[in-house]
Amino acid sequence: MPANPTHVTPSLLEAYAGRRQVTPPVWFMRQAGRSLPEYRASRAGTAMLDACLEPELAAEITLQPVRRHGVDAAVLFSDIVVPLKLAGVDVDIVPGRGPVFARPVRTPEDLDDLVAHELTRDALAPIEAAVALTVAQLDGTPLIGFAGAPFTLASYVVEGGPSKDQLRARTLLHAEPASWRRLTDWLADVSGAFLAAQVRAGARAVQLFDSWAGALSEADYRAAVLPASARTLDAVPGDVPKVHFGTGTALLLPAMRDAGADVIGVDHRLPLDAASALLGHRVPLQGNIDPALLDAPWPVLERHLEQVVAAGASAPAHVLNLGHGVPPTADPGVLTRIVDWAHSRA
Amino acid sequence: MPANPTHVTPSLLEAYAGRRQVTPPVWFMRQAGRSLPEYRASRAGTAMLDACLEPELAAEITLQPVRRHGVDAAVLFSDIVVPLKLAGVDVDIVPGRGPVFARPVRTPEDLDDLVAHELTRDALAPIEAAVALTVAQLDGTPLIGFAGAPFTLASYVVEGGPSKDQLRARTLLHAEPASWRRLTDWLADVSGAFLAAQVRAGARAVQLFDSWAGALSEADYRAAVLPASARTLDAVPGDVPKVHFGTGTALLLPAMRDAGADVIGVDHRLPLDAASALLGHRVPLQGNIDPALLDAPWPVLERHLEQVVAAGASAPAHVLNLGHGVPPTADPGVLTRIVDWAHSRA
Repeated sequence: MPANPTHVTPSLLEAYAGRRQVTPPVWFMRQAGRSLPEYRASRAGTAMLDACLEPELAAEITLQPVRRHGVDAAVLFSDIVVPLKLAGVDVDIVPGRGPVFARPVRTPEDLDDLVAHELTRDALAPIEAAVALTVAQLDGTPLIGFAGAPFTLASYVVEGGPSKDQLRARTLLHAEPASWRRLTDWLADVSGAFLAAQVRAGARAVQLFDSWAGALSEADYRAAVLPASARTLDAVPGDVPKVHFGTGTALLLPAMRDAGADVIGVDHRLPLDAASALLGHRVPLQGNIDPALLDAPWPVLERHLEQVVAAGASAPAHVLNLGHGVPPTADPGVLTRIVDWAHSRA
Repeated sequence: MPANPTHVTPSLLEAYAGRRQVTPPVWFMRQAGRSLPEYRASRAGTAMLDACLEPELAAEITLQPVRRHGVDAAVLFSDIVVPLKLAGVDVDIVPGRGPVFARPVRTPEDLDDLVAHELTRDALAPIEAAVALTVAQLDGTPLIGFAGAPFTLASYVVEGGPSKDQLRARTLLHAEPASWRRLTDWLADVSGAFLAAQVRAGARAVQLFDSWAGALSEADYRAAVLPASARTLDAVPGDVPKVHFGTGTALLLPAMRDAGADVIGVDHRLPLDAASALLGHRVPLQGNIDPALLDAPWPVLERHLEQVVAAGASAPAHVLNLGHGVPPTADPGVLTRIVDWAHSRA
């Protein structure tokens, strides 16, 4: 593991604070996961949500990509539905499908039942333990805390599982604004408590994933989603930097910043210079290597990396990352090579 | 069925030609389909692709929404993989999943095998028959021909079925540009021949569906997708208007026009006034009622319709439609009510 004395501010946090780094800090969304053989070995025989709730295992999985790739950040191995599970909601992650809720929220009674669940600080103990165990072994590399944003969570809760267009959630948003507000406020509180626990236990930055926000128009986002995402981010204690990410968000970047984000994650669709212009060149950016390029020959990928880093120079600072999560089929050797490539730039 | 004497140009074609209509013409993508009980009755016991290839049945299904809703256009009941099936490719549509290819294109040999298939004019006879039967019963309401664009088709062909991020197709595009070009040129020729057959048999407009184009950056779209889509549209004989549609295409609208489109279909994410501005206010637009609103109370939906029509006034002309296909769960009564609402405006 790279030595990273704690009295020096890690380059990731410098970049998140808007100070450009000569050597771009780099990590990968979903770096702790199925692309790594050591992950598959560690997880064997343990269900996804159980693995998230076993502190030693979650810490080990979180550390694996830091050891292997030498990335500039760890990101807690978890899932966006973990805080709901800890609140007592009947949810599971079905392999090959995703989160599945035993009782989708379709009626006022379903909603009453859901929001009656409380996420206590005691219930968050396994998360705090996992974070503390991870940080103790990170030797100064910062850990990023992780949570799902209310809209994306709502899309699963209302549908009962993954959906194509988040259609039911978007209907609820328009058809029953009061119910929508009650649902997303509850989700904001649960996700906010999840982030707060991670920060209390030692996470030095957080990232809010609103993976499906790109299904929304800007008007709908601002009216019905931004307030709940802001509520989630407001729950983060102290002044740790807050990263906000979604896919297909070219129309939403300023609104996502307005939710209280310090850093915006950009997917592969929008070049970083265009993203930076949309944000008045005032917001540090993270991204946006196209995951589809990971399987291309190295010269093709390297040309793409050069373009990403060149476009990232438009922003006040840039953290190199993918434009979406690491695909399970990715060759981990390519990820290591990207880290080495980034770190060799000076 | 509404009387629509053939010596008067239908309002749909007037709008597609850029002449604003006081009463906005309206039709719905996927209007012939699962939302209609008469469709479910007609289709009972017949597989999807078989239904597309039985001229009497395809014509009947195409006519159903015209009879029921009084829409201003029929759109041929078909599927984007129909021309591949007619070329002899082993593809089926699996209920609940989508198109599935027996031999996904993963190797040079797979590609050789695919492009060896030829779509003859004889093979297109059932399509021409379905179109002719439909047109004979339409009493002047125009029929829109239908095809899938090469990128969206390639995403199915390469993956072997539906995929989340069109990742394999996008990797091929970058990793093997010559193979990608060969694949998409072949798909363009097959889809182009499919459109040409529909026009020869009486379709008075065509719409090219590039449903998943929104997965691409503009640079990738222009370099590797636009040429094949242009090739498809170039195959359309005569001067019938060409509509081009995809979802999540806020970054792509000018490039989609540059592929040779006369009219741009806009999904629900981008307001029509913003879309029109991106196109220099020179291109007739189609769209973009949010399908999520179909299940909202009528006053909420009506407010949305007013907004859509008001924003559509930015464009030279506007054809009212959904921002995506009719969801199978939609209440057909709501669709009829939208048509009546549109036709009562003057």
